[in-house]
Amino acid sequence: MLLEAVYHRPKQNWAYAYDHETLHIRLRTKRDDVQKVEILFGDKFIPFENNMQTKPMERFTQDAMFDYWQAEVIPPFRRLCYGFILNSGKQKVWMTEKGFFDQPPTEHLGLFEFPFLNPIDVFTPPSWVKDAVFYQIFPERFANGDPSNDPANVLPWGGKPEYHNFFGGDLQGVIDHLDYLTDLGINAIYFTPIFEATTNHKYDTRDYLKVDPHFGTNETLKELVNACHERGIRVLLDAVFNHSGATFPPFVDVLEKGHTSKYADWFHVREFPLRTVNHIPTFDTFAFTDQMPKLNTENPEVKEYLLKVAKYWVEEVGIDGWRLDVANEVDHHFWREFREVVKAANPEAYILGEVFHDSIMWLQGDQFDAVMNYPFQGTLLDFFARNTMDGASFASSLNSQLARYPQQANEVAFNLLDSHDTQRLLTLCEGDKRKMKLAVLFQLTFPGTPCIYYGDEIGMDGSYDPDCRKCMEWDESKQDRELFRFYQRLISLRKENKLLRSGGFRFLHAKKDDNRLVYERWDNDERIMIVINNNKRSSSISVSVQTGLASSEQWTDVLTGETVRSVNGKLKVKLPPFGYQILRNQLSMAKI
Amino acid sequence: MLLEAVYHRPKQNWAYAYDHETLHIRLRTKRDDVQKVEILFGDKFIPFENNMQTKPMERFTQDAMFDYWQAEVIPPFRRLCYGFILNSGKQKVWMTEKGFFDQPPTEHLGLFEFPFLNPIDVFTPPSWVKDAVFYQIFPERFANGDPSNDPANVLPWGGKPEYHNFFGGDLQGVIDHLDYLTDLGINAIYFTPIFEATTNHKYDTRDYLKVDPHFGTNETLKELVNACHERGIRVLLDAVFNHSGATFPPFVDVLEKGHTSKYADWFHVREFPLRTVNHIPTFDTFAFTDQMPKLNTENPEVKEYLLKVAKYWVEEVGIDGWRLDVANEVDHHFWREFREVVKAANPEAYILGEVFHDSIMWLQGDQFDAVMNYPFQGTLLDFFARNTMDGASFASSLNSQLARYPQQANEVAFNLLDSHDTQRLLTLCEGDKRKMKLAVLFQLTFPGTPCIYYGDEIGMDGSYDPDCRKCMEWDESKQDRELFRFYQRLISLRKENKLLRSGGFRFLHAKKDDNRLVYERWDNDERIMIVINNNKRSSSISVSVQTGLASSEQWTDVLTGETVRSVNGKLKVKLPPFGYQILRNQLSMAKI
Repeated sequence: MLLEAVYHRPKQNWAYAYDHETLHIRLRTKRDDVQKVEILFGDKFIPFENNMQTKPMERFTQDAMFDYWQAEVIPPFRRLCYGFILNSGKQKVWMTEKGFFDQPPTEHLGLFEFPFLNPIDVFTPPSWVKDAVFYQIFPERFANGDPSNDPANVLPWGGKPEYHNFFGGDLQGVIDHLDYLTDLGINAIYFTPIFEATTNHKYDTRDYLKVDPHFGTNETLKELVNACHERGIRVLLDAVFNHSGATFPPFVDVLEKGHTSKYADWFHVREFPLRTVNHIPTFDTFAFTDQMPKLNTENPEVKEYLLKVAKYWVEEVGIDGWRLDVANEVDHHFWREFREVVKAANPEAYILGEVFHDSIMWLQGDQFDAVMNYPFQGTLLDFFARNTMDGASFASSLNSQLARYPQQANEVAFNLLDSHDTQRLLTLCEGDKRKMKLAVLFQLTFPGTPCIYYGDEIGMDGSYDPDCRKCMEWDESKQDRELFRFYQRLISLRKENKLLRSGGFRFLHAKKDDNRLVYERWDNDERIMIVINNNKRSSSISVSVQTGLASSEQWTDVLTGETVRSVNGKLKVKLPPFGYQILRNQLSMAKI
Repeated sequence: MLLEAVYHRPKQNWAYAYDHETLHIRLRTKRDDVQKVEILFGDKFIPFENNMQTKPMERFTQDAMFDYWQAEVIPPFRRLCYGFILNSGKQKVWMTEKGFFDQPPTEHLGLFEFPFLNPIDVFTPPSWVKDAVFYQIFPERFANGDPSNDPANVLPWGGKPEYHNFFGGDLQGVIDHLDYLTDLGINAIYFTPIFEATTNHKYDTRDYLKVDPHFGTNETLKELVNACHERGIRVLLDAVFNHSGATFPPFVDVLEKGHTSKYADWFHVREFPLRTVNHIPTFDTFAFTDQMPKLNTENPEVKEYLLKVAKYWVEEVGIDGWRLDVANEVDHHFWREFREVVKAANPEAYILGEVFHDSIMWLQGDQFDAVMNYPFQGTLLDFFARNTMDGASFASSLNSQLARYPQQANEVAFNLLDSHDTQRLLTLCEGDKRKMKLAVLFQLTFPGTPCIYYGDEIGMDGSYDPDCRKCMEWDESKQDRELFRFYQRLISLRKENKLLRSGGFRFLHAKKDDNRLVYERWDNDERIMIVINNNKRSSSISVSVQTGLASSEQWTDVLTGETVRSVNGKLKVKLPPFGYQILRNQLSMAKI
């Protein structure tokens, strides 16, 4: 047994409360090295010999290097001390906080501890987020509903997007097209920033309390939010709190008055006066962009101002949450207070951070509900768009991401495939809609909250910014309506099937040098199995469907209604190039 | 190279800010598996090819299974992205957040990140704690300075301690013996609880805002704190916030009125009325002790009350910090607010949690400054008192503890050898003062804040509670004055030598089946090497003193003033049974 590979450390993703009574305890071992793992557990205030129990752990996922085991425990007095029993067939080892032993422990001291399950510490994202399908709107480019508020230099809708041009998109435009969104089936919108700013992307805020006049008024936003809520659509706004714009009045004051400004400490100034020398500002900024001075969120005045903003839009306008721009560069103290304020205003508000890398430090219940899942995006693009990954690597990468976070974090991970900051999915797929569909199929059948970037669903393409920020195509004859119906069908499938949102997930087929995938989702009642042929050639695949779940031999193709039967636990599926099949099996039928 | 053994995950003890500009980045590899580790690092907003640098990492410690590497990096713009280069001689591997590669990375994306060093998130324990030598006082048993406040059933000083008897110790008694403490040399006192309660240990608080009448008044405490401060002695009180006593008025109200009590939600009641069935209370308690009902620290009223208490004693009486009883069972939210309140009242206040197991979740800057270091205690007792550990296991255990936390946490770890909850050190050493001295020598020359349990220094013994809570022996003829002078000498040595408090630490000799130890502490100017013979037989040991530090050949015995010379980088030390030697070497002399 490779003991160096065995890992556990209490809290984070290794020992956490899933709800107010259930703990999840996890352990990592070398892949395929250990046959059986049990958890040994009890209450440290009951005499050792009277209360220690064991329970087998389930190997809940695996990546290229490791197996990950999990057990669910409900400790009657909310306290748990525990160890592990590892069995490789040849060797049996007891693991405690003190290390590895060839004998069982004889006392509580030295065991791992989850000292007390305090409900307030339980990471509880809003329950609606699991059920949401998001749609991302870049407001300047979605629809121009009110030409009266267009910028002076507005260009005709559909022109070539440049870094600094404007096409007049606004909030009225979104209101006007809510039928379209309802028709598509999404039930949540994430808006990139809408507050007053000089650019078309509005990431350089001038006034955090005012909708940009070219987008409408605070009143228009209220109308939009109400109209969305009437349709069951939630609204998420973009909080750009890491930095302001250069026209933000406090920054203008510091620019003018230097260290004598009463706002001098609102920013991180390395040297007065503020200027940029050899492309490096004398103050901290987002990247090295002097138009985006970093806010000093440790300053109580700044904190008070930004928290007022955070609360205002939730309370006054009724938005359903915040997406936090450059969230990883703002201090943890600020985000903790932010959470308190936002959740006090609306306990169901969703807090979504922009973090590109390992996000465990923000996903423990005290800061964010979720992060934008860029690792998911990278893996899907590598496999479906770039073809630089085989099935085994794909599964390893995603499984290792699932192992990295508590289950409730995985259930609401914000799974995007593209955005205003990346090339569009279709372009990444080199225009091949078959590949694009496979990626979307996977996205919409995987745990986590999917997000669709506006226009992808009708076949819009686009390279990096500014090209990915084209005007939405509203001429139906220029929209790919077949692609739209594909999205529609899959969104509806996800909404109709709870198990696609919160059921189990596992790969059944994901192999080296093989671009085919089979995976399944399940709950107590049924299984849905998805077979994907990410190949230029047609392919037959024989799937072993006896995986511990009692199922009937009859499987139904969800999209066509046709039935297929498994024979001796094997299901044969033949798929065309870049083909796929979604198969459903009623577990209850098996019990008849 | 054993890649399964390699571990790194940003934040916690693996990537943290040591101060407002310096990051420590650590990596774990299999012991003796990798020859060289470098960190590859840069700023993610400067083009990749222009700014990535490498720097060798130092193997800062090792345990039985792993080597731990560390690099210090000062990122000019407070942002760091990084990876590692591991070289085993035979194999070279690049490690990023995405995994292991045989080629260097070519872009920032996929590297590990320390996104921004925000000062407010930096874990900064008060600087005085590193320099403190604590003395723990159990007030009922230290000295009776005011017989007028004795309990009715007081027994003559020096009688046999029982669970429920009283000997009249009080705060005046401590005031009266401050000369004694100054003479011993300690500069901080930790008092077990002193607020009004029914028991002799006072862990069952009745009134959190009142000194127990048998100990004195709030005024007496103020006098005591002032008198301590005049002598440069800091004062730490015990905050018993996990649970109250059964006589705490809100609890009495719930006992009487059940669910109609306005305090019903101040506790965790599983079933009304409150009662104990088969030794299990119908409400949450400390352990299963119905005299100690667990407080509901999630209830805003309870929180407000306890935070008022926390602030009151810091502001009104000027105490220097709080030791937190059963700290691990109280929610993290509470402790975060507690820290804000206490540090606002006194930024130099010390917050010390009682946590018996891995404490990383409390030692990240937002909750505690330190925890009571029970793992340290366990290791020292196993080696020095119980003789169940050899030198190699001893070093492995302590080194693995050092690897577990940020450096600033190690520097202020509360290193105790015994307390009111354990057998006394001398008893654990089966009365052998030679063994006891070795343990104390180690404690007082190791990183972290040592704490001496009252009376140990004069040879008091005692088994488990109540025997470890005997009355302090004030009859000098019954005190072991030689032992007192030993403590005095070592305390003074620690206070005179900064490197014993904040210098480097490493073992030079710690072997399997060998009870001898050699270790050293160093700073830029000198080295102190300690040689310990934890053996019944005398022993000669030849120490290799060429360890990368430039030193002269002349070593001075700190206790005797004698000099010894190393020959060809070897120093020969002969020690009697349970002997020790403390040797000093001026690094500056080597440069002459």
